[in-house]
Formats: sequence, structure tokens, C-alpha cells
Amino acid sequence: MFESAEIAHKIKKSVCKAAVPALRAALLEAQVDLYEGKKMPVVLLISGQDGAGKSETINLLYEWMDPRFLSTLAFSLPSEEERERPPMWRYWRALPPKGRVGIFAGSWYSDTIRERILGNITLQEVDAHADQINRFEAMLVNEGALVLKFWFHLTRDAQKKRLKDLESDPHTAWRVTKWNWDRLKTHDKLQKVAGHFLRMTNTPWAPWVVVDGSDDCYRSLTVGQTVLSAMRARLDNPNLLGSTVAPLVRTDIDGRNVLSVLNQQLSLTQDHYENELAHWQGRLAELSRSPAFRNRAVVCAFEGSDAAGKGGAIRRVCAALDARLYQVVPIAAPTEEERAQPHLWRFWRHLPRHGHITLFDRTWYGRVLVERVEGFCKEHDWLRAYTEINDFEHELADAGTIVIKFWLQISQDEQLRRFKEREKIAFKRFKITDEDWRNREKWNAYQQAVCDMVERTSTGTAPWTLIEANDKRYARIKILRTLCERLEAELQAPPSRQTAIRPEKPEKPSKPHKGKKGKDKPQKLATEQAPGAEKPE
Amino acid sequence: MFESAEIAHKIKKSVCKAAVPALRAALLEAQVDLYEGKKMPVVLLISGQDGAGKSETINLLYEWMDPRFLSTLAFSLPSEEERERPPMWRYWRALPPKGRVGIFAGSWYSDTIRERILGNITLQEVDAHADQINRFEAMLVNEGALVLKFWFHLTRDAQKKRLKDLESDPHTAWRVTKWNWDRLKTHDKLQKVAGHFLRMTNTPWAPWVVVDGSDDCYRSLTVGQTVLSAMRARLDNPNLLGSTVAPLVRTDIDGRNVLSVLNQQLSLTQDHYENELAHWQGRLAELSRSPAFRNRAVVCAFEGSDAAGKGGAIRRVCAALDARLYQVVPIAAPTEEERAQPHLWRFWRHLPRHGHITLFDRTWYGRVLVERVEGFCKEHDWLRAYTEINDFEHELADAGTIVIKFWLQISQDEQLRRFKEREKIAFKRFKITDEDWRNREKWNAYQQAVCDMVERTSTGTAPWTLIEANDKRYARIKILRTLCERLEAELQAPPSRQTAIRPEKPEKPSKPHKGKKGKDKPQKLATEQAPGAEKPE
Repeated sequence: MFESAEIAHKIKKSVCKAAVPALRAALLEAQVDLYEGKKMPVVLLISGQDGAGKSETINLLYEWMDPRFLSTLAFSLPSEEERERPPMWRYWRALPPKGRVGIFAGSWYSDTIRERILGNITLQEVDAHADQINRFEAMLVNEGALVLKFWFHLTRDAQKKRLKDLESDPHTAWRVTKWNWDRLKTHDKLQKVAGHFLRMTNTPWAPWVVVDGSDDCYRSLTVGQTVLSAMRARLDNPNLLGSTVAPLVRTDIDGRNVLSVLNQQLSLTQDHYENELAHWQGRLAELSRSPAFRNRAVVCAFEGSDAAGKGGAIRRVCAALDARLYQVVPIAAPTEEERAQPHLWRFWRHLPRHGHITLFDRTWYGRVLVERVEGFCKEHDWLRAYTEINDFEHELADAGTIVIKFWLQISQDEQLRRFKEREKIAFKRFKITDEDWRNREKWNAYQQAVCDMVERTSTGTAPWTLIEANDKRYARIKILRTLCERLEAELQAPPSRQTAIRPEKPEKPSKPHKGKKGKDKPQKLATEQAPGAEKPE
Repeated sequence: MFESAEIAHKIKKSVCKAAVPALRAALLEAQVDLYEGKKMPVVLLISGQDGAGKSETINLLYEWMDPRFLSTLAFSLPSEEERERPPMWRYWRALPPKGRVGIFAGSWYSDTIRERILGNITLQEVDAHADQINRFEAMLVNEGALVLKFWFHLTRDAQKKRLKDLESDPHTAWRVTKWNWDRLKTHDKLQKVAGHFLRMTNTPWAPWVVVDGSDDCYRSLTVGQTVLSAMRARLDNPNLLGSTVAPLVRTDIDGRNVLSVLNQQLSLTQDHYENELAHWQGRLAELSRSPAFRNRAVVCAFEGSDAAGKGGAIRRVCAALDARLYQVVPIAAPTEEERAQPHLWRFWRHLPRHGHITLFDRTWYGRVLVERVEGFCKEHDWLRAYTEINDFEHELADAGTIVIKFWLQISQDEQLRRFKEREKIAFKRFKITDEDWRNREKWNAYQQAVCDMVERTSTGTAPWTLIEANDKRYARIKILRTLCERLEAELQAPPSRQTAIRPEKPEKPSKPHKGKKGKDKPQKLATEQAPGAEKPE
């Protein structure tokens, strides 16, 4: 959930200043249309890490919009009167009527998150509540509401820095209390609980918008523009009422995303590569033959741009494995038999039994990548696929299967270079240029699809690992190392309740087996998942 | 869930014989169209009480349909190969391709029901699995499948009789083993577990068809006609693919339903009535003033045909209550403020706090009654309302509120008589006739809506009680008695985990307070709920 919010988004104050007047005008206009149309209420949830800018954002919305048609609904602990009714009673009373915008500071999510952090409820109870919330929000949307849920994210360091800054400024020092510093202690716990809870409730009809809270300008513009585009889409097209808003959510307004921040300079010398290769292939061989693996299985997914080097990487992995225990499944267009079944059917049929490994060369993510971009399936179909895929991978994890997913990313230029290199062998010059251009045209659409995929399907038990693949050697080693580290951690955990770890990266790829903790954010996926979680999330 | 299946449906052998040839021909034709179109697979789940005719039905479908395009998939305990994959793997493998019909004997429901009966899993785990199943079946339907789930119901007595009959017949005696007789012992447990699980998974897109299994002819025709109408609707209208089939489900093909079997002869003499009234009003007064009630609340719903006597009954209830502790909320057309909110909002706002009672004269069921029949809302909207209403009442029950629902039923003639009586006072003769005729025209539509409502919303914690209201005296006493018995049972239960009891009826209404158990089925609602259930269902 937090991948995109972990890459330190930033927008210059000057850029922000320039953009705000037009945004304010558009928001006011949308608000007037909303009030005059009286077709739908707008429900905005403002939540997130402490100090990530919740109250600032609410103040800003009041400043930007017409306060007469806006109401803020703040909730702390329930009153006696409220405790004598069902928990949802106080939220029902506060729902904004059609034509108005209601901002919820604290919501039907707060109690569950708090109780879970305090350890008062089980993960099952959290999931049960997530299901109730999904039904409640589906009802709201079916009844015409526009529901947008904002979560402001801060890394622990950023949160600490923010508190320090507030304290140092005499105008804001009063806002920092012991309570705030205590919240800092629970940062990671909140991350983990919220990460799971948000993913369980991240529906197409009421999506979460996870926003990096560290930069005021970026946060404000992202919120403003998301609210505007979602409201505008509904107001201009009333028969969209009750349909999904997820596609309207954009958090890369500063042009930064999990792919663009990858460091494609990372590379290995030939010697270095050969040492690493020997080391990690040996390690993988051991692990795959260890007794602990006999009642586990591995499903390994390889996705990536054309010519990113999936095949080569898969061969380096297989080289370490006992040929009787693994299977490589290349995914092409579905057969007639497969087209007569649900889209996930052809992957279910290849699931490995205990002690076995299946490597998929291209995967069930085709639906949210090529099928989405090329328009092979309807928006409705690829949107529901995220949930179906998460369910699929959760079922695998619950059954003790270890799910490992790689996205191999190369730059546009590198891809062109490799195409040309290929062309020398296979095709005629004029042919590649067409395909090449065609590729360039859709490049951004594909990048967008990949970012959405990572954001929505990188889960605690099945995290994505993004591979900087401009250098094939570096890519292969990082893949082997991630495999080994993940396997190692999983095989230590009790098979009944699997836990995922985040593939850490050492300062230099040269000494991965010393397992130092790394700094470069983009590779930290599923960050909300701490080792030792009691259930796949 | 089992209300309609509890009223001993029956169809004459001769009638059945006459109907079968046409049905068979139509089924075969539908099957050919299905196979040639290859647009959708048909998934039929056959489940239910032991001895309720599961295998007979499967054999019959083979006899009636073309076995070449039909496959039966039987599942018992998973094999070793299956245990090494996720639990759903073996069902995925067995899914019928587009163009074919797959009959599942044993399904993704069996394991959970068995484990729950054995007490190996908690109710929370059951609910979590119900949620997974709903998502799985939604995926199947989104992918084009037609999913029909049959549950064959038998009362304990009927099950016993059936086993005896089988044993006594030398041709079938071999089918009855000790295992079968053991199953009889778990009948009630299965009823309770299945009742909850079925209701949690009774979705508009994959509805349960609960069929009385006691009469072969009725069972066979109901299954055959349900399968036919659902297949036909999809085949003739391909853009219905992925939409709901619930409205196509009809189980009253013998013309009997929970309303038609009510005994409208029940009545009380004036003297008798006055004794009863005094007794039960006194009892109610005590109960509503008891200390145990101080941390509970009551929501009482009154629905019924026009002129059925709701108002009079409500007055008799209020007469026993402390005016400071109850509120009567008459529900008319929604105000402008209420129209600007979700349809349940105007009921939420009137919820009582602890120690208080709210009586609704007409209720949140308007959406699935008048709004459905008069076409005030779309099918999509009243179909989703059943789930929304169940969620609403579950939230009430979870919060310790006691939900009591009455449907007052009068015969068409009695209604006419009362209209005419009223007309003498209020209206001119010609007026009533129009309204009267208008009423008669829609009478059946309303009766159908009421039956669907009872079937889908009579839950363990919020059961419907049907009131034979042709005799006002009898109706008022039955209402007061049900209220008292329900309150009594609830106030004995721990407030945290409420349990519902079925309002039992004494042989003769004359000695209700001796609380003898009654026989007449139609009044036994929420039968799957045994006293002492550990959670609201």
C-alpha cells in the first residue's frame, strides 16, 4: 500500500503557488455544481500517521472550498449516548446529505486500528470488520455517494523529523506533546496494522489514496487534484454514480513513481558477478534441498518489460535446482481450453505440490498489464482482477506456498539498444523501428499499469521486488539473493502461519550474504510487513 | 432460510408425470443452446440434509439431460495430492468449461460445515470463509458462469421417516447404514450451522435454492424448473451474463407458501381475550421494568397488509409500557432531508438507547415491499436491500438491541370487509372499489414480496413472526406473547452475546403462559436457530 508514498515525493513551493489559484477556482465551481445538483454526497476520510498533515489538510480544504457546504466530523472515543447504540450509529448520524461535502477526521476505521494496535482484537476480527466496512461503503456508493479515503504516510524518520521541526518553531511547539512522541514509538505497529487493513478495504468503489505526507506542497496538491477529478467525473457524467473511482486516483503528480526512482546505474563487473553467482546458486541449492522445504512450495513470478532479461534470469535460477523439483511455465496467449475458464484457471492448474518450485515466465498479472493497456479486457474486468489476484496469492500463502514476485525494469533507451541488438540477428531494420515506436507510444501507459499493480498487489506475504535490470549481471544476482533471503526467512517460520520479510539490500551488492540493512527505498516493498507477523497479510 | 421448506410442500405424482416430458424437452434444448453458444458454464451445487434426495436428484438430472455435456464432481476428504495445494485447488480443477454443466456433489461449503459441526473452527472462521466464498463465486459469475446452489431440507421427523421407509423397502434397505442414523443425531446441529452459513452466502448473483426434500415430485420439479428458467434467461439474453439470478428462483410451484398455510381460523372469544390481554400486558410491564433490561434495548417492527390491524396492536403493546421509555415511529413517505440520505438513514436516527423501546409502524422493509412492487426503485436496488437490512439488524443485535419483527396477515376477503367497514365512515362508495380492485390486482405481487422477505431476512437474532390477523383479538395476544417470550429469553442471555429464540406456540392460545410447545409449522421461523447459539446469526 505504501510503496509510492515511500519515495519522498516533492513539489517546489513556486510550482505549488502557481497551481493553487486555478485548483481553488475549479474546486469551488465543482462544489456549487454539487450543491445545485443535489445528486450525491461527498465523503472524505482524512487519516494517517500522526504529524503527516491531517489537520493542515482539513484547514486547507476549508480555505480552498466554500465552508457553507462543507462540514468536518471529528470523532474520538464514543460518548455514553453513542456507546448505547451500535458502533456505526454516530457515523450514520454524521453522513453528509446529497449536495454537501463531509470531511471525516477519525472514522469507522479508527476504532479497529486502535484496538488492533493495543492487541485487544485478533486479525480475524480485523478482517471481519474490513468485510463489514466494504459492505457499508458499497451501500454508500450504491446510494450515490462519492467516497474518497486519504491516508497520509510518513516514514518513521520523517515522522521524527517533523516532530523536531514543530518543536523547534515557537509558533508550533505547542502542538508537540508527550502523546505525539509516544505515537512515534508505535509507528511501525501502526504501519503494519494499517497496511493490512487498508489493503483489505481498498475497493474500486471506495479506494484508498495513500499520500506521502512529508512535503506540504505535494500533499496539498495531490489531495486537491484527487478530490477535484473525482468530483468532476461524477458531476459531468451522472450515470457514473455508483461506479468506481479508483482509476481517477493519481499520486505521481510530481512525476516520481516507484519505477522512475530506480537506480539503473547499479552494475557488477564480470569477476564480481561470477563470484556472486557461485555463492547464491550454491545457497539456493542448499535451501531447496533442506528438510524444512519438504512441506513447503514456491511459486515464483517473473514479469518485466520486453527484452528485460527474464529468460536469462530464470535460467540462472534453474541452474541451481534439482530438475525433478522445478517447472518453468511460459505464459503465452491462452489455449482454447483455457479461454473457456476463468482467467486465473490456467495458473491454478500449474501449482506446485510440496517440495516443488514453479517459475512463471509472465503471469496472472497479464490481465492488469497487457490486457489493460492493449484494451483486451474491460476496465471493470481488470479493476476486479487486483482483488482476485490478491485472493489467489493469499490462498497460496495460507497453504504454505512461498510467493515471490519480480518486476524487471529497464530504461527505454536500454530497451531500444537491446531491440537493435536483436534485430541484427533476427529481423530486418525497418521492422523493428515500427515496433520500437509502437513500444515508445505505449511506454507510459505500461509504466502506469506497473505502478498501479505494485501499489495494489504488493502484499506482506507476496511482496513485489523491483529489479534494476539495465545491467543483466546485477539483475540476476539481486534476483538470486532475494530468492535465497526470502526462502531462508520462510523456512525458519512455522509452516502453518507464514510470514513474509522484505528483501533488504546491502549497501553494496558485493556483500549481500553479510545481510547489512540497505537504504535505497524503492526496493523496500511491503514495508508495512514486519518479520514475524502472525498471519499472511 | 428454511421457512418455505418447512411447510411440507407436495405435488401429486400424476401432476408430475404430466409436467415432466415438456420439462425434459426444454432442458435438453437449453443444454444444446448452451453447448453451441459456449458462452457460459453452469455450476450446480447439490447439498443438504442426509436423505433429502441429493443422489436421487443427480440421477434424475442425468436422466433428463444429455450426459455428454454434463459432469458430476463428487468430493469427499481431500487426497494427499490435494492436501499439498490450497484447499480450493481441487474445485478449480473441476470447474466446468463454458458450454457445459457441472454438478457438484460436495463443494467448497462441505469442509467448513463439517469442521464447524465438529467444533474445530470458530463462528468467526466460518464467517471469514463465507466472505472468501462470496468473492470466489462473484468471480465465477463475473467470468460468465451461472451458479445455482441447491440445499435440500428435511425436518428431523421427515429425515427419520425417510430412513425408516428406505430400510423397510428391500430394494433400498442397503442404502441405510449406521452412518445415516448417526447423521440423524446431528440434524439440528447441521440445521443451525447451515442456516447461518447459507444466509451469509445467499448472494443475488449465486443464490441458495432451499428445497423441501420430503416429497420427490415437488423436489424434482422445483430443481428442474429452477435450472431451466435460470439457463433460459441467460441463453436468451446474453447481456444478462454476470448479473443476478435470485429473482428467477421460485420454490412455491405447488402454490403453497408461508402465508397461504397460515391458519386464519384462529380466534379468541371476548372474555378469553380480556384475560389474556391482562396477563401479557402485566408480564410485559414487568419485563420492561426489570433491571436486566437497563443495558438492553428493543426495536420492534410492525408490517402487514393494509387494514391488518397494526395500529390497534401497537396501542395494546404501548398500554403496558412506561411512556418515558418507548417511542412509536410511524413511517410515511420520506422527508426531503431523508431523501438526501441512504434509505436506511431515517431508521438509524430513531434507534433507542439502553432501557428504551422503539416501535416502528411500517419499517425499513418498505424497500423490498411497496418500493419493489410499485416499482419505486430498481430491481438492483431492492435486491441489494436484503443484505443491507440483514447487516443493519445484525449491527443492532451485536450491540445488544433486541429486534422483534411482526408481519400481520389477513385474507383478501377480510381486507375487503374491513375496507367496506371503513368506507361507511370515511370514503364514498365508488372510491373504495377502485382502490380495492387495485389492491386485488397487486395482491399476489405483494404476497410474493412478503415470502421473499421472510425467506431472506428471517435470521436467528431477528426472526419474523407471522401473525394470523383475521381475528384482531388473536393477533394482538400472539404479538404480546411473542414479545414477552422473546424478551424473557433475551434478558436471561448474557448481554454481550445475544441469542434469539423461536417464538413457540402453545396447542391452544388459551394457556400460553404454560409455554407448551406447539406444532403448527408456519409460525416457527428462524428454525435453524437453536436456543443458546453463541453469536447473533
